[in-house]
Amino acid sequence: MKRTLVFLTAFFLTLPTLRAQQALFGAQEIVSPEISAEHQVTFRVMAPNAKEVKLSGDWMPSQGWVPGSADMVKDEKGLWSYTSDQLVPELYTYYFLIDGVRSVDQNNPFIIRDVATLMNIFIIEGDQADLYKVNDIPHGSVTRRWYDSPGLEMDRRITVYTPPGYETSSEKYPVLYLLHGAGGDEEAWITLGRTAQIMDNLIAEGKAKPMIVVMPNGNVIQDAAPGEGNKGFYKPKFMVEKTMDGTYEAHFTDIIKFVESNYRVKADKANRAIAGLSMGGYHSMHISRYYPNTFDYVGLFSAALMPRADATSKVYDDIDGTLKKQMENGYKLYWIGIGKDDFLYKANVEYRQKLDDMGMKYTYTETDGGHIWKNWRVYLSEFTPLLFK
Amino acid sequence: MKRTLVFLTAFFLTLPTLRAQQALFGAQEIVSPEISAEHQVTFRVMAPNAKEVKLSGDWMPSQGWVPGSADMVKDEKGLWSYTSDQLVPELYTYYFLIDGVRSVDQNNPFIIRDVATLMNIFIIEGDQADLYKVNDIPHGSVTRRWYDSPGLEMDRRITVYTPPGYETSSEKYPVLYLLHGAGGDEEAWITLGRTAQIMDNLIAEGKAKPMIVVMPNGNVIQDAAPGEGNKGFYKPKFMVEKTMDGTYEAHFTDIIKFVESNYRVKADKANRAIAGLSMGGYHSMHISRYYPNTFDYVGLFSAALMPRADATSKVYDDIDGTLKKQMENGYKLYWIGIGKDDFLYKANVEYRQKLDDMGMKYTYTETDGGHIWKNWRVYLSEFTPLLFK
Repeated sequence: MKRTLVFLTAFFLTLPTLRAQQALFGAQEIVSPEISAEHQVTFRVMAPNAKEVKLSGDWMPSQGWVPGSADMVKDEKGLWSYTSDQLVPELYTYYFLIDGVRSVDQNNPFIIRDVATLMNIFIIEGDQADLYKVNDIPHGSVTRRWYDSPGLEMDRRITVYTPPGYETSSEKYPVLYLLHGAGGDEEAWITLGRTAQIMDNLIAEGKAKPMIVVMPNGNVIQDAAPGEGNKGFYKPKFMVEKTMDGTYEAHFTDIIKFVESNYRVKADKANRAIAGLSMGGYHSMHISRYYPNTFDYVGLFSAALMPRADATSKVYDDIDGTLKKQMENGYKLYWIGIGKDDFLYKANVEYRQKLDDMGMKYTYTETDGGHIWKNWRVYLSEFTPLLFK
Repeated sequence: MKRTLVFLTAFFLTLPTLRAQQALFGAQEIVSPEISAEHQVTFRVMAPNAKEVKLSGDWMPSQGWVPGSADMVKDEKGLWSYTSDQLVPELYTYYFLIDGVRSVDQNNPFIIRDVATLMNIFIIEGDQADLYKVNDIPHGSVTRRWYDSPGLEMDRRITVYTPPGYETSSEKYPVLYLLHGAGGDEEAWITLGRTAQIMDNLIAEGKAKPMIVVMPNGNVIQDAAPGEGNKGFYKPKFMVEKTMDGTYEAHFTDIIKFVESNYRVKADKANRAIAGLSMGGYHSMHISRYYPNTFDYVGLFSAALMPRADATSKVYDDIDGTLKKQMENGYKLYWIGIGKDDFLYKANVEYRQKLDDMGMKYTYTETDGGHIWKNWRVYLSEFTPLLFK
């Protein structure tokens, strides 16, 4: 420790002052968020000239669609702070509103992007939230690579999780194809969804089988997530063109072919699962019936399952017939999960009614809350232990 | 297009208003930054209650260590804007100062973290900056995985770039070990350094040989970058304990062993390069002479090369003798690059004098500017074409 200090001094001999270092490296001595042993969280932001600073956290009750917020309190130095009640274990997001301007917490560099929105994150440990932490256990690998999609006529970026031991084993693995929602991309599940942490933890606990998780980009007009592809940096939007027109479903076999010729996988129906959230649930439903003898496991998370007047692609011909075919071919699990407050709740009731009428079996989970990542992380951690058993 | 609109309407039937969507997904209609055909850039931020908004961009002249900034101008709606002069091609960073509070541009979700500091980025295309773009060419893969370090007694996270075609070829590849500076980690070169984009572009142009680039974490007390390891989320600091006490250098062979037993590589001196920036340059200098017959290529980018009174580890015994040994064993390239304004400039003059006195050959590049990522990206793109020829 002493040595380091000596060296630090030597290292910065030519830097005039500590203030200079702060200017250079942006260091600030404010701690935010600070999580107490009792799981109360204190947030701080230095804003001496501000008249009003609010904190908006996703644990605060919203009023309709308006997110909840709380007033922060200013001290004599201009440091605003707010301490939460005890929070239950979860991964939370928050941001500041400084005189009405939305701002991330500069003292917390842990940020996630949801569509075009940046938010800070923190984790309150315990229970379910321990699945979202990096624990001292074997870890899988996460690769961003590019595959050739002849159907879409482009190279496309894809995120692949391989389980601990994959590289050194000669074993073949089952595969879960995990699809994002509208506004998402191949980064969504791995960042917002904490897929690598959830899988590492479930596998280490013996709850899920080691599997490969493939997270493709479901927006057929994109080669990659915004900023990661050949269109450069541009502002992501909630829903891009052609996301639900049948093109993705029709060419999904490009992804399966890529995975099955590039990874050591068990390339059969018993070892393929497909699941997705919202638009990805819609994709999963359609892909699994359009290729009705391909997946033994299907997961529909808060899925956008309502019938669409504009679904004119041949992919959407004879939905009932192909579902029936899928049922006759057999499958091991057809899993549906949705939150009671989800705006897609009614569409899911109607879809389940359709399945009931057809006699098509499914497993159903209903949670609190709405169309939110908190639920999708829970669904992923409930769904994956049921796979490949 | 029409279909999409029809569907969007259906999808949000239950959402009361457009404003609700904005609340839910954070959409804002402000475009920032906007880059004109003439490479002038307009920045915008909505802050109706602010008294003063400044923009600080890394192209603005700094005053000593105080970054440059410019006043933004408010319109009648409370939208502040600023338009730059024509900017030359480069990857730039910037942030806002809203009534003195540092803030990222919420309309530009492209953010990089340097130590604990968040900044927005954008690219002005052309010349050197085209190496930083994702172009429509074959792409390598970037994997975050974990290796066992018996020497440090932990599993550690590492970032590995494999060149286009690696997965499908049976060829063996050379390896560049690329080390970060103080405050960095295994994310630094891949994010701030644009390593994947630079390598993809240089390889596609035939300027660099296809190679594997290994980006380890040089902080021996960390298993991973802040937020990615088992210490959870915590604020990164500029320099952590034990970064330059010899421990990393002494156990660097753990990394080489991992790479050479897990990747298809040419495992000989002629096919190993090591380079690093600042502290990573210090590490590269010491590792390459401590293992004096291991690397044919060494790159010292703005390296922290000054003698240290506290360097008491056995790694630092007999520096001159091991350098002499390295010289006698032979090497192909010993590359030194530094900016004229770098606070380590003098230490590099002295180190080159030492090499001159010993008769140890090196290649020297001097650029404008100081201790900044702009220079390190340039050095990487000048160094890698010289490797493995």
